[in-house]
Amino acid sequence: MRRTDKEIIDPAALDAVLDAVEWGTLGLAGAEGLPVLVPVNFVRCGDRLSFHGATTGEKMARLQVSGAATFLVVEPYALIPSYASSDARACPATQFYKSVLLYGQVEVVTDRARKAGLLQALMEKLQPEGGHLPITDADPQYRAGLDGVAVLEMTVARRSGKFAFGQMFSAERRAAVEKLLRDRGTALDLASLAAMAAYGPA
Amino acid sequence: MRRTDKEIIDPAALDAVLDAVEWGTLGLAGAEGLPVLVPVNFVRCGDRLSFHGATTGEKMARLQVSGAATFLVVEPYALIPSYASSDARACPATQFYKSVLLYGQVEVVTDRARKAGLLQALMEKLQPEGGHLPITDADPQYRAGLDGVAVLEMTVARRSGKFAFGQMFSAERRAAVEKLLRDRGTALDLASLAAMAAYGPA
Repeated sequence: MRRTDKEIIDPAALDAVLDAVEWGTLGLAGAEGLPVLVPVNFVRCGDRLSFHGATTGEKMARLQVSGAATFLVVEPYALIPSYASSDARACPATQFYKSVLLYGQVEVVTDRARKAGLLQALMEKLQPEGGHLPITDADPQYRAGLDGVAVLEMTVARRSGKFAFGQMFSAERRAAVEKLLRDRGTALDLASLAAMAAYGPA
Repeated sequence: MRRTDKEIIDPAALDAVLDAVEWGTLGLAGAEGLPVLVPVNFVRCGDRLSFHGATTGEKMARLQVSGAATFLVVEPYALIPSYASSDARACPATQFYKSVLLYGQVEVVTDRARKAGLLQALMEKLQPEGGHLPITDADPQYRAGLDGVAVLEMTVARRSGKFAFGQMFSAERRAAVEKLLRDRGTALDLASLAAMAAYGPA
């Protein structure tokens, strides 16, 4: 890829995407070279990711064969119409986005206290307002539930980010896209404007 | 998976997801069993999917080795907090979603007229208001652009859908979740309510 302009290596910027986006795609090696793709809610705890699933099913079966996994998290931003630029062709049409790609190993967590801690962390991400009994292995109300759910943890060997916000646009095209986003003015457009300011120009 | 309640086989319902969602994840077999995951904008034309990319780069390099691919499209709906149910534990927390998983073969399209037609279809999906010169191979303004972009087409051998809208909820839980969505009332909540009505109970 000649897209060095989009590469993001700041750990805090990548962590922010992982903490903001509620789901990602787990990719596992499947039969005949076809990857198995599974969308899952997830939480980052330090350098690791956690997610959960049924104790049976394809996802768990694959994990018992091979622990190598890829994980992709995407935060889509505004679609940029071609006519934001002076070019009358369709070519300038694009979409802004942030993406983080992670490679590593996934393991099934069997320790009940660790399972409880990771599930509690997932709840704190997705339901930050609380409103439930804290998940602990000491609480007998959670014992059956903890045994009935599979908790997976991914150790990340490497990760990379791509943030696409027109870093390579000419000054003229950049100004035209900024104007379109300001005029259109949806919440996603305004977030895209802020990201253009934060991450451009290359 | 014991999730037969979530399986959707109606072709029109699956097509509607593919036509509504602007991007999906292409999964290709990578080295050492690690899938390569690439987020791409895409368009459905009949039974096939199309997307495009740079004529160089990892995505294209993989495709020249093996054409087997998986494609995942996800339409996330509302997060359902645990406290929507009478259970005080965290366990009822979930997220509604529609997903379509497709398996098939990806090929590079080399015919310039076909490339133009597929890119025009992609524009009609993502920029339905038009506002650009139609993409045709007859237009000399598009010649260099068409040669400089790689257009990929995926022939789908099989596909499946999962729509999760609480189809297996008890009547009591269902009513409580409907009330929470109505009261919270975001656009996504109201879309989730409509989907609960369309797809439940099992």
